[in-house]
Amino acid sequence: MVSLEQKASEWSGVDPKDAVAIDEINLFEKLGLQTFINLSTNFYNRVYDDEEEWFRSIFSNSNKEEAIRNQYEFFVQRMGGPNLYSQRKGHTALIGRHRTFPVTHKAAERWLHHMQQALDSAADIDEDSKTKMINFFRHTAFFLVGGVELKNQNKGTGCKNCSHHH
Amino acid sequence: MVSLEQKASEWSGVDPKDAVAIDEINLFEKLGLQTFINLSTNFYNRVYDDEEEWFRSIFSNSNKEEAIRNQYEFFVQRMGGPNLYSQRKGHTALIGRHRTFPVTHKAAERWLHHMQQALDSAADIDEDSKTKMINFFRHTAFFLVGGVELKNQNKGTGCKNCSHHH
Repeated sequence: MVSLEQKASEWSGVDPKDAVAIDEINLFEKLGLQTFINLSTNFYNRVYDDEEEWFRSIFSNSNKEEAIRNQYEFFVQRMGGPNLYSQRKGHTALIGRHRTFPVTHKAAERWLHHMQQALDSAADIDEDSKTKMINFFRHTAFFLVGGVELKNQNKGTGCKNCSHHH
Repeated sequence: MVSLEQKASEWSGVDPKDAVAIDEINLFEKLGLQTFINLSTNFYNRVYDDEEEWFRSIFSNSNKEEAIRNQYEFFVQRMGGPNLYSQRKGHTALIGRHRTFPVTHKAAERWLHHMQQALDSAADIDEDSKTKMINFFRHTAFFLVGGVELKNQNKGTGCKNCSHHH
């Protein structure tokens, strides 16, 4: 069976080793909390103003300030800082918490487009950290695409069994 | 909508604040890596020897050594230590990675029974840490029960739609 990590690497073009290069240094200690707040704020400003309605609408039921906080608290927790996300919300459960979102290949690329723009405009993040972060984001985005696809496969099986019974 | 955390608290009887009391101190620094290895080894020895075949069989397709390592690396990562799990396997994705297991209320209680026994027999863990850990485990177990139920609800909906079409 092809694992989610293998799929994520294939689709993203990011080697698993590059995806976890964020762990080579403590990015939270290097960059500080405010840098993560700035990045997520910049990112979601772009997302909520996206000219592509199909992508913008994915977030229309989410509160923007809550989305920003969820994101930077997760980044801080994953990149060497305190477990801010888990202390407030419990397990990060990345696939589970994206289960209601249409995480398609196209949506992953649009998410990454905005994140790349947000990183490009972040004067408070050095180039090496930017490279580590975008590799992590790219691999993660396609890890979630794979997670959602598996969920839909399960649904498919459920339906097939169902039709046998009728 | 009732959140997974609310469900987890209701079913487990563990207040969200008690579930994250593991973050009040750095349990990894306090206990050390070997203690976590011992705990997971003890736990899975019990699981793989369980007299209850229905529970033992849940793990029959899993490699015991791999299960032990996955567990203690996750615990270390979540309880203040290095991101051992993510460096080797990627995102912890707790709900996603349990999607193929039948995480029922009964299975959660059996899992917790073995973990309680493993903690009771752990001479290298102090009482305060044991209390913090079992509250975290209890809340987490029912968080996963809730995650799996949601997955099945999705399947249910798929089936209903399906039957309308036939």
